[in-house]
Amino acid sequence: MSQVRPLPASRVLPKTHQHQLLAEFVGTAALLCAVIGSGIMAERLSGGNTAIALLANTLATVFALYVLIEVLGPISGAHFNPLVTLVLWSKGLPAQEASPQRAILFIAAQLLGAVAGAWAAHAMFDVSVLQFSSKLRGGWNAAGQFSGWGQWLAEAVATAGLILVVLRAPKDKAAALVACYIGAAYWFTASTSFANPAAVLGRMLSDSFAGIAPTSAPGFVIAELAGAGMGVLLSRWLGETTIETA
Amino acid sequence: MSQVRPLPASRVLPKTHQHQLLAEFVGTAALLCAVIGSGIMAERLSGGNTAIALLANTLATVFALYVLIEVLGPISGAHFNPLVTLVLWSKGLPAQEASPQRAILFIAAQLLGAVAGAWAAHAMFDVSVLQFSSKLRGGWNAAGQFSGWGQWLAEAVATAGLILVVLRAPKDKAAALVACYIGAAYWFTASTSFANPAAVLGRMLSDSFAGIAPTSAPGFVIAELAGAGMGVLLSRWLGETTIETA
Amino acid sequence: MSQVRPLPASRVLPKTHQHQLLAEFVGTAALLCAVIGSGIMAERLSGGNTAIALLANTLATVFALYVLIEVLGPISGAHFNPLVTLVLWSKGLPAQEASPQRAILFIAAQLLGAVAGAWAAHAMFDVSVLQFSSKLRGGWNAAGQFSGWGQWLAEAVATAGLILVVLRAPKDKAAALVACYIGAAYWFTASTSFANPAAVLGRMLSDSFAGIAPTSAPGFVIAELAGAGMGVLLSRWLGETTIETA
Amino acid sequence: MSQVRPLPASRVLPKTHQHQLLAEFVGTAALLCAVIGSGIMAERLSGGNTAIALLANTLATVFALYVLIEVLGPISGAHFNPLVTLVLWSKGLPAQEASPQRAILFIAAQLLGAVAGAWAAHAMFDVSVLQFSSKLRGGWNAAGQFSGWGQWLAEAVATAGLILVVLRAPKDKAAALVACYIGAAYWFTASTSFANPAAVLGRMLSDSFAGIAPTSAPGFVIAELAGAGMGVLLSRWLGETTIETA
Repeated sequence: MSQVRPLPASRVLPKTHQHQLLAEFVGTAALLCAVIGSGIMAERLSGGNTAIALLANTLATVFALYVLIEVLGPISGAHFNPLVTLVLWSKGLPAQEASPQRAILFIAAQLLGAVAGAWAAHAMFDVSVLQFSSKLRGGWNAAGQFSGWGQWLAEAVATAGLILVVLRAPKDKAAALVACYIGAAYWFTASTSFANPAAVLGRMLSDSFAGIAPTSAPGFVIAELAGAGMGVLLSRWLGETTIETA
Repeated sequence: MSQVRPLPASRVLPKTHQHQLLAEFVGTAALLCAVIGSGIMAERLSGGNTAIALLANTLATVFALYVLIEVLGPISGAHFNPLVTLVLWSKGLPAQEASPQRAILFIAAQLLGAVAGAWAAHAMFDVSVLQFSSKLRGGWNAAGQFSGWGQWLAEAVATAGLILVVLRAPKDKAAALVACYIGAAYWFTASTSFANPAAVLGRMLSDSFAGIAPTSAPGFVIAELAGAGMGVLLSRWLGETTIETA
Repeated sequence: MSQVRPLPASRVLPKTHQHQLLAEFVGTAALLCAVIGSGIMAERLSGGNTAIALLANTLATVFALYVLIEVLGPISGAHFNPLVTLVLWSKGLPAQEASPQRAILFIAAQLLGAVAGAWAAHAMFDVSVLQFSSKLRGGWNAAGQFSGWGQWLAEAVATAGLILVVLRAPKDKAAALVACYIGAAYWFTASTSFANPAAVLGRMLSDSFAGIAPTSAPGFVIAELAGAGMGVLLSRWLGETTIETA
Repeated sequence: MSQVRPLPASRVLPKTHQHQLLAEFVGTAALLCAVIGSGIMAERLSGGNTAIALLANTLATVFALYVLIEVLGPISGAHFNPLVTLVLWSKGLPAQEASPQRAILFIAAQLLGAVAGAWAAHAMFDVSVLQFSSKLRGGWNAAGQFSGWGQWLAEAVATAGLILVVLRAPKDKAAALVACYIGAAYWFTASTSFANPAAVLGRMLSDSFAGIAPTSAPGFVIAELAGAGMGVLLSRWLGETTIETA
């Protein structure tokens, strides 16, 4: 269609690594764009019936996740989630490539992608690009009263399940399994299953259906960290023999 | 993420068997958590339109079943259902492993898992963990009047179909086929297709969308037993030649 | 679960053929039971929103068709539709087995199955087993006024598409393709895509969401026959080289 | 079913090429018929809830796209979209066949198919065959006021994503990936993702749910062209090494 200028020679990373970071950036951006954009569309069209809005949000997320993991997985593994990157790095995966530097750059690409994805959704729907969510989720309501531990437990459960699926899914079915898992967890967890600190960041920046107030974000991220640990343990207890247990 | 203490040496079962029981426990818990949790979420959001609530409940169940069978199937076979365990045991499946002791422990793990799953859903949605359903299903209404045989027939049909699918599905498509079968049966059977005594137990403990009153439970379980028998016969009549018919 | 008495020795058909007829009977019964049962459930729950009812009816039909074709296809080919049987027989498929007698018995099994399926749905939902639809579809409205050719054209289009999919689907994807095709055609054809004379018979016997008045049935069946012919021609024009064109 | 007259000997294209053009015509017609027909059905049944209508429209489109690409892909590659044809032709795909003449005829077949599909939908739903949409999309509202760049950005994003999926999907998963991508993009792009100039043409001819006013069409097509270019670049930046970058 047109000429592409060669990438600047000053980049220090090997080319393949650049492709991986771009894939993580693009994939996480597209994921957040899908989650937030479909949430805006669904809220606008659903006439106040939140169940219909969440159904549409669920379908769009499941379809998008499936496509993104299939298409970008061969490049970067399609993490799109700092906890997935951390868990795989902690297990030395992928072999010969798992370095702290790589994990940190992956996470940076994911966080930048999440922000870009939220902003792209806002631009498409003609709303302010820069905004912050006012939707309190978990812990305390607007009056400052404690509303229960449920949302945090839900995030922990959601993330534990996601990590279990990521660690145990057969490679050729991973895209479908992760997408379907999130589709189920949107409904069976009380928090609609963020299960991803990059998603928390992107959603924090959107005052819409899928948003989360910045004050609620730390609770969600801590719960997700705990859940990721639970997922790792659960996978081990189910007989993961390739991992050292000492 | 952290160290795992070795499992106590006093366990008498071989390690593989422990993994299987844990898989049956975790899988049945996750299944019931998905069924009950998505039912609570759907009822809260659907503004009184029960069809939308059941649609969401259906999608969450289908996605969850598919993922659980794919992920845990390689460990335990992913029964999550005492009738599936009984039918396979009665056929001597899996070869060399089918013992009465194994079947009993599987069923115990499933029943415990169903209870744990219901309770986990309640904890996530900040409702009382311990509760009992008041939803009458089948036989008699709240006024004590007989309301027809339909719900019981529906459970028998639902279970017969499930067993037929379990016995005849090609191994690599079993997860998708069982999940889709249940998705259809949620709608075409009048009982929304429990088809699983462990599910009856878990749902009995939840006064929510997916619940069943304890007084209605025995009727459902008996119908499911009859349906499982019908499913075994139907599979045989369709030409199952590897099973002794005498 | 129990002993099975040997089938009576007086049957003249080879055993394999009996299995095929049973598979066509059971499959068509289950299909109609799913279509009609989910229609009744959806209509009861949807609070008058017909789009939600048809969405649920669509999902249940797609799931059921996929499961039935995968599970029973290895036995009989999973026609469940007289036009599929006729088209395949006219092409001499399956090789060495395509006889007029076989085609006639297949169609008889399908028609009996359709009736049994409708009645099973009625029994499960505690409504009269024997009933006739009063829903006029195509041609004339209740006042006897001609309402347009659209419904008949829709049935022809729906059936042409189904036959095209049946003739050209790769064998290992046929179940998913037929199921998805019908799922789409429920919405894009004005008639909600019966595309099957056995389905017309079963639905004629149900005064519910999925029903069709007996007076509307002949128009639908004629349109389906024309559509099947169009599907055969279209497949040929697309380069079906194994079929004689003279 | 009946005899087919041989195609006239005067055709200059080799037979295989004729099959391809017919496949592009039939596939694009069926796609537009599915999009527009399901839009009409959904709007009629949804009682004014646009989210439910778009959900049904989405499901029908996803199912139809999946089936059409699987069934017609082996014949023509199942482009159904001038931009897909242009992008593949610009890359010299398929090898040995990519000529300007072929690309032009493909696009002509797609545009004719889109018109035929819109008209077929209208005929089935008993509305005027020839009509024009009055639905303004993008740029200016009915009062002539500029309403923002969002819709055009959305079309560019939607098309970039589609081209990325087309260029990078594994061949055996392309049908599912393209269908799921469009299903997601119906919701996450503000424009409901036309992403196809042939679709713009067909929808322009339908004053219904899926329509677009002729005055809005040029903006959409230009945005799609820009998006296709972005998709080509993005695929290159992700490491497409078989393409010359000079």
